[in-house]
Amino acid sequence: MNIDGIRQVAIIGVGLLGGSLGLAIKRLSRRIKVVGVGRRMASLSRALEAGAIDRACMDLAQAVPESDLVVLATPVGTFGKYLRAVRPLLKAGALVTDVGSAKAGVVVTASRILGPAGPFVGSHPMAGSERKGSSNARADLFDAAVCIVTPTPKTPQTAVGRIGRFWRALGMKVVRMTPAGHDRAVAAVSHLPHLLSCLLMLLPDKAQLSLAAGGFRDMTRLAGGDHEMWRDILLANRPNILAAMARFDKDMRILRNLLKSADARAIEKFLTAARTRRDRAIFSMPRSPEA
Amino acid sequence: MNIDGIRQVAIIGVGLLGGSLGLAIKRLSRRIKVVGVGRRMASLSRALEAGAIDRACMDLAQAVPESDLVVLATPVGTFGKYLRAVRPLLKAGALVTDVGSAKAGVVVTASRILGPAGPFVGSHPMAGSERKGSSNARADLFDAAVCIVTPTPKTPQTAVGRIGRFWRALGMKVVRMTPAGHDRAVAAVSHLPHLLSCLLMLLPDKAQLSLAAGGFRDMTRLAGGDHEMWRDILLANRPNILAAMARFDKDMRILRNLLKSADARAIEKFLTAARTRRDRAIFSMPRSPEA
Repeated sequence: MNIDGIRQVAIIGVGLLGGSLGLAIKRLSRRIKVVGVGRRMASLSRALEAGAIDRACMDLAQAVPESDLVVLATPVGTFGKYLRAVRPLLKAGALVTDVGSAKAGVVVTASRILGPAGPFVGSHPMAGSERKGSSNARADLFDAAVCIVTPTPKTPQTAVGRIGRFWRALGMKVVRMTPAGHDRAVAAVSHLPHLLSCLLMLLPDKAQLSLAAGGFRDMTRLAGGDHEMWRDILLANRPNILAAMARFDKDMRILRNLLKSADARAIEKFLTAARTRRDRAIFSMPRSPEA
Repeated sequence: MNIDGIRQVAIIGVGLLGGSLGLAIKRLSRRIKVVGVGRRMASLSRALEAGAIDRACMDLAQAVPESDLVVLATPVGTFGKYLRAVRPLLKAGALVTDVGSAKAGVVVTASRILGPAGPFVGSHPMAGSERKGSSNARADLFDAAVCIVTPTPKTPQTAVGRIGRFWRALGMKVVRMTPAGHDRAVAAVSHLPHLLSCLLMLLPDKAQLSLAAGGFRDMTRLAGGDHEMWRDILLANRPNILAAMARFDKDMRILRNLLKSADARAIEKFLTAARTRRDRAIFSMPRSPEA
């Protein structure tokens, strides 16, 4: 099986996401060739050992020219550099996508470098782990998870369709959004949660921390994430994260006043609203990476 | 085996915690008799079916007089009522403890009702689940978890020792703290996390929520908790929760300014501090209740 004629995929960055993508592609079809591009031989060797890539190279010129799809899986802050390097090497008809967590800036950068009418289509597979590197990569990381695809009005429909089919072939549920809509949404469901997790991790003193149980552990799992990846995400999606933070802060102030006035009924109402919403929520990724 | 002559335990409230306690006691020794006291026959029947209790009754007078240990496992707001009802029924030498998440107020109430020199010794097993009721109870809920025991200067050492041995016999790691120290600590590692989880659950709109993945799911697990139990905890520990909230808010404001000024180095430093602390933390409860 190949997907829309994709016979070779170049994955730039063979960390957790790049490595998991390679494993998922190889699981789908051993005949699709996966070439990993990285800056350090050690990471590339681990990806080769894990079976996530068929070939490793440190030079884009050895990977891009024969690839039908190029996937950026490095921190979003490096995308501009890689897109500029990839541009002269791309073969005709090849597509470029990414797995980055921020989209508006990425799409503008890609359109400036590669042209507004493709071959770039932004993607954000909503899956990950606080664990780093291809040694933690898993073929099933993307299974049943949502992948947000963020075309612009100028992106050709054929390219959007091909990228969508690629993620669907890997078992993902594809959702189309505007880059701006994506960035607003992930600020609320991913980026702010990450910051809350970090803030919480730093709150208790050492003795208090030693008493923490399962609830605290789950609330701080995200804080274990890679700091370079997250620094780039936070910088790339600053305005939306600040807006989400302001809304969160406003809600927290309301809750604080309920507590101050010991308003039992209003506190119960707040707790019930959250519980009801949680009970009804269906999460796309049922398993816990730490389990 | 019996623990320090404990031949019968009365558990008031046979929900998740009471039920799990019953199962853990029966797992330890089938010869220790567990009597469940509840207000609704349906809950009591479920606890009987689950094997969490040997006998069910709706009347304290049928459970307390022959018990060597009485454990309060109802919402903390009901403790005063139950302690007053238990007092005339207690047999000589019997101990009373609880599994409540707030301690300063509870200890004052118990000392006023039962006397400052016992037989009450406050306990807080740091284990739980967002799932309610004895049908979700598990014999291993308390395994390897911390149990905080909160004597006052007037609590007899023999009573503190017996309560400690009871929890240790069930597989828990016992830590002694003052009621006030306990309440400050759990505000940071349990109560504030619960509120953050609820606030986060209510933040995204419906469309955004449908995109949420594993990180958001883990961050909002606590929000699924029982609202009556949590209403009572929040009311009982208000001052410490408000103080923890104020510290969290201050840290969030600092972080917000780092984001506003796009201070990449400081953001990275913040993320690294949180990640390092998470990597070094050893949580007493290694498994995830939702896994």
